[in-house]
Amino acid sequence: MILETIEKENDIKNVKPEDWNQLAEEIREFLINKISVTGGHLGSNLGAVELTMALHLSLNLPQDKIVWDVGHQSYTHKLLTGRRAGFENLRKYGGMSGFPKRKESECDCFDTGHSSTSISAGLGLVKARDLKNETHTIVSVLGDGSLTGGMAYEALNNASRLKKNFIIVLNDNNMSISENVGGVSKYLNNIRTADKYLDMKEGIYNSLMESNLEPIVTSIRRAKSSVKQLVIPGMFFEDMGITYLGPVDGHNINALMKVFREAKRCKSAVIVHVITQKGRGFAPAEKHPARFHGAEPFDVDTGLPLTPKTKSTYTDVFSTVMCKLGDRYEDIVAITAAMPDGTGLKRFRNMYPDRFFDVGIAEEHAVTFAAGLAAGGLRPVVAVYSSFLQRAYDQILHDVCIQNLPVVFAIDRAGLVGSDGETHQGIFDLSYLSSIPNMHIMAPKNKWELSDMIKFAIEFHGPMAIRYPRGEAYDGLRENREPICFGKAEWIYHEKEIVLVAVGSMVKTALTVREELIKKGCACSIINARFVKPIDTEILEEASTDHQIIVTLEENVASGGFGEKVRDYMDSHCPHVNLLNIHIPDEYVEHGNVEILRREVGIDAGTVIDKILTICENRQ
Amino acid sequence: MILETIEKENDIKNVKPEDWNQLAEEIREFLINKISVTGGHLGSNLGAVELTMALHLSLNLPQDKIVWDVGHQSYTHKLLTGRRAGFENLRKYGGMSGFPKRKESECDCFDTGHSSTSISAGLGLVKARDLKNETHTIVSVLGDGSLTGGMAYEALNNASRLKKNFIIVLNDNNMSISENVGGVSKYLNNIRTADKYLDMKEGIYNSLMESNLEPIVTSIRRAKSSVKQLVIPGMFFEDMGITYLGPVDGHNINALMKVFREAKRCKSAVIVHVITQKGRGFAPAEKHPARFHGAEPFDVDTGLPLTPKTKSTYTDVFSTVMCKLGDRYEDIVAITAAMPDGTGLKRFRNMYPDRFFDVGIAEEHAVTFAAGLAAGGLRPVVAVYSSFLQRAYDQILHDVCIQNLPVVFAIDRAGLVGSDGETHQGIFDLSYLSSIPNMHIMAPKNKWELSDMIKFAIEFHGPMAIRYPRGEAYDGLRENREPICFGKAEWIYHEKEIVLVAVGSMVKTALTVREELIKKGCACSIINARFVKPIDTEILEEASTDHQIIVTLEENVASGGFGEKVRDYMDSHCPHVNLLNIHIPDEYVEHGNVEILRREVGIDAGTVIDKILTICENRQ
Repeated sequence: MILETIEKENDIKNVKPEDWNQLAEEIREFLINKISVTGGHLGSNLGAVELTMALHLSLNLPQDKIVWDVGHQSYTHKLLTGRRAGFENLRKYGGMSGFPKRKESECDCFDTGHSSTSISAGLGLVKARDLKNETHTIVSVLGDGSLTGGMAYEALNNASRLKKNFIIVLNDNNMSISENVGGVSKYLNNIRTADKYLDMKEGIYNSLMESNLEPIVTSIRRAKSSVKQLVIPGMFFEDMGITYLGPVDGHNINALMKVFREAKRCKSAVIVHVITQKGRGFAPAEKHPARFHGAEPFDVDTGLPLTPKTKSTYTDVFSTVMCKLGDRYEDIVAITAAMPDGTGLKRFRNMYPDRFFDVGIAEEHAVTFAAGLAAGGLRPVVAVYSSFLQRAYDQILHDVCIQNLPVVFAIDRAGLVGSDGETHQGIFDLSYLSSIPNMHIMAPKNKWELSDMIKFAIEFHGPMAIRYPRGEAYDGLRENREPICFGKAEWIYHEKEIVLVAVGSMVKTALTVREELIKKGCACSIINARFVKPIDTEILEEASTDHQIIVTLEENVASGGFGEKVRDYMDSHCPHVNLLNIHIPDEYVEHGNVEILRREVGIDAGTVIDKILTICENRQ
Repeated sequence: MILETIEKENDIKNVKPEDWNQLAEEIREFLINKISVTGGHLGSNLGAVELTMALHLSLNLPQDKIVWDVGHQSYTHKLLTGRRAGFENLRKYGGMSGFPKRKESECDCFDTGHSSTSISAGLGLVKARDLKNETHTIVSVLGDGSLTGGMAYEALNNASRLKKNFIIVLNDNNMSISENVGGVSKYLNNIRTADKYLDMKEGIYNSLMESNLEPIVTSIRRAKSSVKQLVIPGMFFEDMGITYLGPVDGHNINALMKVFREAKRCKSAVIVHVITQKGRGFAPAEKHPARFHGAEPFDVDTGLPLTPKTKSTYTDVFSTVMCKLGDRYEDIVAITAAMPDGTGLKRFRNMYPDRFFDVGIAEEHAVTFAAGLAAGGLRPVVAVYSSFLQRAYDQILHDVCIQNLPVVFAIDRAGLVGSDGETHQGIFDLSYLSSIPNMHIMAPKNKWELSDMIKFAIEFHGPMAIRYPRGEAYDGLRENREPICFGKAEWIYHEKEIVLVAVGSMVKTALTVREELIKKGCACSIINARFVKPIDTEILEEASTDHQIIVTLEENVASGGFGEKVRDYMDSHCPHVNLLNIHIPDEYVEHGNVEILRREVGIDAGTVIDKILTICENRQ
């Protein structure tokens, strides 16, 4: 095994060129075997094997820096920088992250997770290098999907003024997580398929030079835009002032190294356009790139999941309800930012293609576009992950809520998400949404309630967010299905002494807490909050008449969350009641199994019970 | 006066073509006279007079829709839609807004204020129109500055797929608020100056067609990218799938109407590239476009401000301190998003051009770029308005704070900003910043404290935000200048009974409140909070030993703000103390004089005193 000879960065340089392809194969085999056990991002990593090898062969790490956009494609980079053993515990609690982490290796120069940040971060590193008179090379690697995010353009717009070297590798597989969309994709596709066209253009150029038209060519060359437009693809980049090299075969290490050598000589920002194939070398992933973007453990021979899905997820529920509602209301439209699979909108797209919009990795646009749709009289539903909606905070505040437009936000992956870790935890949405006037927020306790809430939200006259967690939908408490009423919570158990007021996913936890408390001889009620904004003050007043301890439970940070709102109210209206807020502490939460993370951050049933019992003891 | 014959939308169509230029002159005179009295956005409006007239002549409002990007250039639109009288009270409390407002007129179809939203919103209106089988025309008007914002690209990327009409007017004056920056600007400039070049290209094309090279031209035409690249500017837009028309003289109404007629016939998104001059027709504004972007009342003859500035603003203080620190520390760098004047960084730019970065209207990039600079070992200071920093919530959370990078955020225009109104009020920053782990927040009570805080922040090892208000810097309490200490508040008066814990701008209010309370026979202490995150729990404990009432004061909404944090702590540690939180209610705050707005939202001294006295009475 050549792979086993690579114990740290730059060891790859000892591998003989004739063995490079074998090493690439070994890396692929290693990745497929490991990820089939742990789960993880497969397709993007298989596509970037040779690209990463060529970068490591061409650069000198850790002096030289590679910024990985999104970062899920950095597995080969981790392998080549001494982290082979880490794959045993990839994305597990305490184990290696699935993303670049500065704290993991000196060779990881910038943490990533969300899309389209790498050019901005890389440009910052470049400017720092130049001001400090250093000379190392900085490379940002981003996929063509990341180019649909506006930040990437903002950064290109600024990189174009550089007079020093900055290499931007465009890893183009014509995919973001699902298929790529929009004009930029079309533009890149034109370049990809331009070989013949290129030949022709070169033909013209040569003919012009040979013909009596030469003076015209010369005068064009003197004109601002120059004759390059005749012969070079990637003209937009060139017009902006960024050198364009490519396209180059992203699975040919020699070709890649040659183009990187050329790129390093440029005294400007330079885009190296690399064509790769997502899932390369593993037939199931080549065939179903979306399924193998972020994969659960699977059978290596068949590519099928090891533990076939039996129970439905909240995403499934959302998916089904949207299809039904699409039939009932002609004016419902659905928007996703490059996540038709992840958000469950694929079925809606198939049934109502005209009313479905995948805008690319562009949450800002998604939200303001939805505001426009609502202003035009339709009922838009924006389906998005909690951590990605952070991108659109201003658009929600400025474009949707000032005008009080009826946009529904279906916020998936809210709360702890597990193995993707700190960049993806959906633990801030209650806070950032609560700060916005006119915004309203719900969270369902189980699958039926999610369904009811979507229907309620669609009929609502203003902005409405519904946040629900990743994974399996809770299917207990089926009998508790009072109609959703604006701003109203729901009694699950109405007893006395202690009352647990739980938000969404925490209702299930509350049930466990209650059982244990009863065993200890305490009486315990449960309120399902349903609404986080506005809070149900009536039920709080009611609860305060026959309870001494109120406990709020939420899967969100404290600041601006549900507990603080309840505390504000209780303090001025029911000051005699003891209030305990259970929430996520003011810290980033790492990757790992969700159950472990809950314990770590102190929102699991055991911790909650202990805290409640302590209060009870103090009161006695 | 022709202008007086225009009482409502479409009245302009009764004006004879030969009188159009006179009407344009009358509009300019009207705007100059009115804005010289009320203040307001002058340059952008003078530049858009003919463009707006041509749009109104070409469209049928309110069926047809115009989305004004940013919206500060909509004054002529307001004049032509029956709001002439509104200019008497432009931007005054209860008066007409300086931005488009749906609640003001049926002809305002979408509210704006921040940059680069118009294509997204317009595309939403287009899709709504098409799904409802309506046929009206939708036009988004944006400046070239707005094109430096990533959202605009995200939207263009999506608009490129349209098979129906959508007109995007690019109002190109080569300026955002200050001079425009970056590759896109360069690209547009190439087009602007391409007249001669165009002639040449057309020459080549014709020569090719006439020469024996015709077959090659024909085969190129058949190739994907077509021969348009030889003859058409705006090729990037065309390559994306967006039709490009222009450039056209933006002060020639006939030419504009002709191009709009052509644009309406396109079955796709179409960019109409209009060249205008900011400040057109008013010599001082033509000469100093930045100064007349948002103007205070001025003398019409000289262009000079009517009330010359005597006292220094917080922006001035920041400006001066940054220049000094720039000298002391070689590794300080400063970043602004198109606001070198507004943020006061212009002087830093002049002194240290290599360490100054104006990134365009691109807050997302600005923040992640700063993260890159910090990761590269420099000390970046991002100077930005509070309401615009909302755009970068995710970048602060994801790129700066996860990595705990030492980026300083100098947040100007925090709190109520006055005449710009609801889109510009800086009343959310304490909330959205507080939700982010590793973030720290300070607010100065006066000009000297701002200076001290900047110096402290530069030396700090992690993310640090300093928020300060628009306008005149408070210069009282000069003697209170204890060194800034991490997380520590400051006693201004230490007495007993009532203690006011005030954040930043509210310290001045607290002084007034205290004086009145003393007159009423109450004892009253004042704590200057200094830090909003973390809060100083020691001083709170200390205060709770000799005070019965604690009053927090902040110019921010309640949810996630300073008061909630104090309440959380006091509740569990000093439950015997009465706590009153003064903050801005959960509502958008309109435009108007800041003093009036403070009263309206209940954070003025009078309201605070009444609330405190009520508590005192209830306790007795």
